[in-house]
Amino acid sequence: MGKIFVDRLIDSIKAKNNPTVVGLDPKMDYIPENIVSKNFENFGKTLQGCAKSIEEFNKGIIDAVYDIVPAVKPQLAYYEMYGKYGIEAFEQTCKYASEKGLLVIADGKRNDIGTTSEAYSKAFLGRTKVCGDLFETAFGADALTVNPYLGEDGIKPFIADCISDLKGIFVLVKTSNKSSGQLQDLKTEKGKRIYEEVAELVDLWGNDTVGEYGYSSVGAVVGATYPEQAEALRKIMKKAYILVPGYGAQGGTAKDAAVNFNSDGLGAIVNASRSIICAYKSERWESKYNENSYAEAARAEAIRMKEDLNSAVGG
Amino acid sequence: MGKIFVDRLIDSIKAKNNPTVVGLDPKMDYIPENIVSKNFENFGKTLQGCAKSIEEFNKGIIDAVYDIVPAVKPQLAYYEMYGKYGIEAFEQTCKYASEKGLLVIADGKRNDIGTTSEAYSKAFLGRTKVCGDLFETAFGADALTVNPYLGEDGIKPFIADCISDLKGIFVLVKTSNKSSGQLQDLKTEKGKRIYEEVAELVDLWGNDTVGEYGYSSVGAVVGATYPEQAEALRKIMKKAYILVPGYGAQGGTAKDAAVNFNSDGLGAIVNASRSIICAYKSERWESKYNENSYAEAARAEAIRMKEDLNSAVGG
Repeated sequence: MGKIFVDRLIDSIKAKNNPTVVGLDPKMDYIPENIVSKNFENFGKTLQGCAKSIEEFNKGIIDAVYDIVPAVKPQLAYYEMYGKYGIEAFEQTCKYASEKGLLVIADGKRNDIGTTSEAYSKAFLGRTKVCGDLFETAFGADALTVNPYLGEDGIKPFIADCISDLKGIFVLVKTSNKSSGQLQDLKTEKGKRIYEEVAELVDLWGNDTVGEYGYSSVGAVVGATYPEQAEALRKIMKKAYILVPGYGAQGGTAKDAAVNFNSDGLGAIVNASRSIICAYKSERWESKYNENSYAEAARAEAIRMKEDLNSAVGG
Repeated sequence: MGKIFVDRLIDSIKAKNNPTVVGLDPKMDYIPENIVSKNFENFGKTLQGCAKSIEEFNKGIIDAVYDIVPAVKPQLAYYEMYGKYGIEAFEQTCKYASEKGLLVIADGKRNDIGTTSEAYSKAFLGRTKVCGDLFETAFGADALTVNPYLGEDGIKPFIADCISDLKGIFVLVKTSNKSSGQLQDLKTEKGKRIYEEVAELVDLWGNDTVGEYGYSSVGAVVGATYPEQAEALRKIMKKAYILVPGYGAQGGTAKDAAVNFNSDGLGAIVNASRSIICAYKSERWESKYNENSYAEAARAEAIRMKEDLNSAVGG
């Protein structure tokens, strides 16, 4: 029996001294021309050609960062865009990342009523049982992001697989986007914000998956763009590992992200997507790198981000 | 330029005199043994064998009901379970249903921040643009269910494609499951329930897609299991077409579902999944049908449901 998800995540964060997850949100505009033209030549200017380009691009990124970051977070939407070919690229990306020792957090924000959540959970985390035989999980991720709007019977099936298959979930609590407050910030008659109500549930849902560091495999998503709310949420969800999107391209700073960490230097993992995978096109790196060195640029930015975060968290 | 989604939906409901959508949630347990064994023989007892079984099963259901129901609603989770093979079965199911003149409502409950919602919308509703060329949409559905927890910048990209590509969305407002009240029923300091707040947003979001019958292509999901709440919601979202899950196997009756309709006899479409696609195993039909006649059983139950609904709505 291996370790539970949150312990595997923390072990890897400690070993690499890096609380970063690289978001694999590969838009076609990010992919170097030579990769795209080669795959269009082989597979046509088609959805398949796009998906094959993405797969090759992702492998380049993974090769460049696997020894310095603990996890990657492929965003399902950017694969579903290319239909079954995109899903194949997603599968291959998950598999390749796992082989390289990276944890894979599938960013799908899935949610449904209980029986259907069970099916989603089998797809991403658990294993499908057919005619008495247990199949491997289709996508083989280590964790999945989930949406709480349907309440706990839409969440419990995921938690069951977190326990049986040593996987994790990150429940959306306070998202990084501008309009996140429209529902999440509404104040209830008891004076609590909706995101605080969700946070209390996350804390409760995490009770059965607490590991050796005192954290739970039932984590939360809290945007770096809302540091004040994050401070309050950290206190409500004492044992939740927090996945922090919104650093970098979305405007969140290392200082903003740092409030999600505890005094043990743990408790959060910060995502950056565009600023790493498309670093070669960024103002910071474009003079040094070009599309032939997109992977080196991603590595350089991942190292810069690690130092930026560690100095904000440690200091 | 064709008609907008909601008008196509209403035209079809009127032509078939049937406000039913058949939920294609094909669990392996539902599929007749002869279909499964044939596909396991051809494709192995594998995720692919499962997916091929599902595709064949779905086609049988579609052949049996396409002339009497206006729409089908495949539930993504039951396809994702089988990885890329499952997604291929989903694609083929959508394509086959469309060819038979059925509207396809993809039940994915997708949601994310704006730029990512745009990618989801391209996958299901819109068309992907790559290097200046417009690709067809990957899945080619007519509508998609979406989750509102991230607020309007996660919804707007879907609405843009509802306008440009004549598609529709159904926003989760009050879901049919037992724990739906945990967040959705919380009362705000202004005395409104969260599902009422969402309903007001849905009403607003629907303003730019109102068709000839006065309804909008921005619809809502309201469970048949909560008829009291549904009555209140009908008044808040006057122009939203309401997708009603929870009839049949989940316990909602025709009378419960009927409160979602307006005096024009329109305004809602009621989903049944298990009670139709697995009718041959139901108490009601098992003496008359068996696995060799699963499609006829589905047709018989679809006709019974149509009459049940029409008598509750009309009466």
